[in-house]
Amino acid sequence: MISKARIKFISSLQQRKYRQLHGLFVAEGTTNVLDFIKSGIETEELLATEEWMERHRQEVGKVPVTEVSMKELKKISSLKNPSEVLAVFVQAEQTTHDLQQINDLILMLDDLRDPGNMGTIIRTADWFGIRTIICSGESVDKYNPKVVQASMGSLSRVQVTYDDLFELLKTKPDYLRVFGAVLDGKNLTEIPKPNKGIILIGSEAHGISKKLLPLIDHKITIPGLPAGATSAESLNASIATAIICYEFKR
Amino acid sequence: MISKARIKFISSLQQRKYRQLHGLFVAEGTTNVLDFIKSGIETEELLATEEWMERHRQEVGKVPVTEVSMKELKKISSLKNPSEVLAVFVQAEQTTHDLQQINDLILMLDDLRDPGNMGTIIRTADWFGIRTIICSGESVDKYNPKVVQASMGSLSRVQVTYDDLFELLKTKPDYLRVFGAVLDGKNLTEIPKPNKGIILIGSEAHGISKKLLPLIDHKITIPGLPAGATSAESLNASIATAIICYEFKR
Repeated sequence: MISKARIKFISSLQQRKYRQLHGLFVAEGTTNVLDFIKSGIETEELLATEEWMERHRQEVGKVPVTEVSMKELKKISSLKNPSEVLAVFVQAEQTTHDLQQINDLILMLDDLRDPGNMGTIIRTADWFGIRTIICSGESVDKYNPKVVQASMGSLSRVQVTYDDLFELLKTKPDYLRVFGAVLDGKNLTEIPKPNKGIILIGSEAHGISKKLLPLIDHKITIPGLPAGATSAESLNASIATAIICYEFKR
Repeated sequence: MISKARIKFISSLQQRKYRQLHGLFVAEGTTNVLDFIKSGIETEELLATEEWMERHRQEVGKVPVTEVSMKELKKISSLKNPSEVLAVFVQAEQTTHDLQQINDLILMLDDLRDPGNMGTIIRTADWFGIRTIICSGESVDKYNPKVVQASMGSLSRVQVTYDDLFELLKTKPDYLRVFGAVLDGKNLTEIPKPNKGIILIGSEAHGISKKLLPLIDHKITIPGLPAGATSAESLNASIATAIICYEFKR
């Protein structure tokens, strides 16, 4: 059983302002919830059906659990088809990166707005072993329920932080090159692919912002049909990111 | 001005049963609407603001237009932030493919359920010049508003049809090989990539169905972290499709 007030409180975390106010966020679904617990993040509360708890008692360990019915979960969930489990976690503290310390491939997202894209990019980065994503302040909140959902547990393994990309890039050591995805760059297959560097992805609607364009070392484009052919004007931002990550890591 | 009955009628097309009953579908946004008009599809009605019509009169040509206000568009739209234009188009007749005639790379989607994934796959196929997508009957309807939206106009250029994939694949000529995306296949970089063939993608939740697995000639997997490393269990279906298309077309 769960009180009406508690249902209201947890539902309120679907909104950014309440997530920020309380420093909490919600994850739903077995993979998501268990991956966060495994990652050692602080769990405020886990809500699950009796059947789910029987199956996963060991993996849950000492986390505080409230048994609820599917009917109650439906009231709290942000999903059309709620899972049997939902958990409230404590947000990680916001950290900043020192680019002098970066010794790997990282992603920078410039005003990425779509939560589905953000979640999918986090999941893809995780697949390819990319552990750091730095987003501009205008990018969508990584704790947005749709981001958490689309990340399929990967948000527990990939560090996603927010920063002023322009100011941060000014502190970049010279050996870290910036690879920016644009529509009129060099063919992705033909550029150098070092094992450290910054892959910069622009917003869905406007691409990379004007202020950041001069900071790109290599403008790259994913080869499609020859110029002049009638085809899609661009690729979805998460698709472009994935193809670039694949090409760097293959 | 538009009547209440007409608003209700157009809104009803957000549901599959009414789209099928009337043989119509809705597209929203400038790119989507103009790409469909350019493709020569029959337009039942175009609804746009006066300002939009002034900017696009030439491209619209002889299509029947109703001028509406943003307030009216908000009532009809399936989007949170409606565009200034929405159009009702006549669905293309369902065709079937003779695999003996296929002389190119095509996609087959086995029970792909997520409309965002479907739309993104159509957009990606268009980018890479893939003109044919054959979906199992259980896959999401290509005229679902979220599919049309995510396809960003590409649905007007890529032929998407529905068929029984098992029966169809039995009629396949030997020179067309089936490349199936699985989690335990050969490294994508190491398999042959002919310029004709079938790329088979499974559903988001269950992958390629058991019935189709024996029909795969080359099981392929996108290389990620080494086995044993903790990372994402899989890639999103539209991401996997895009990386495979890129690798075949690069």
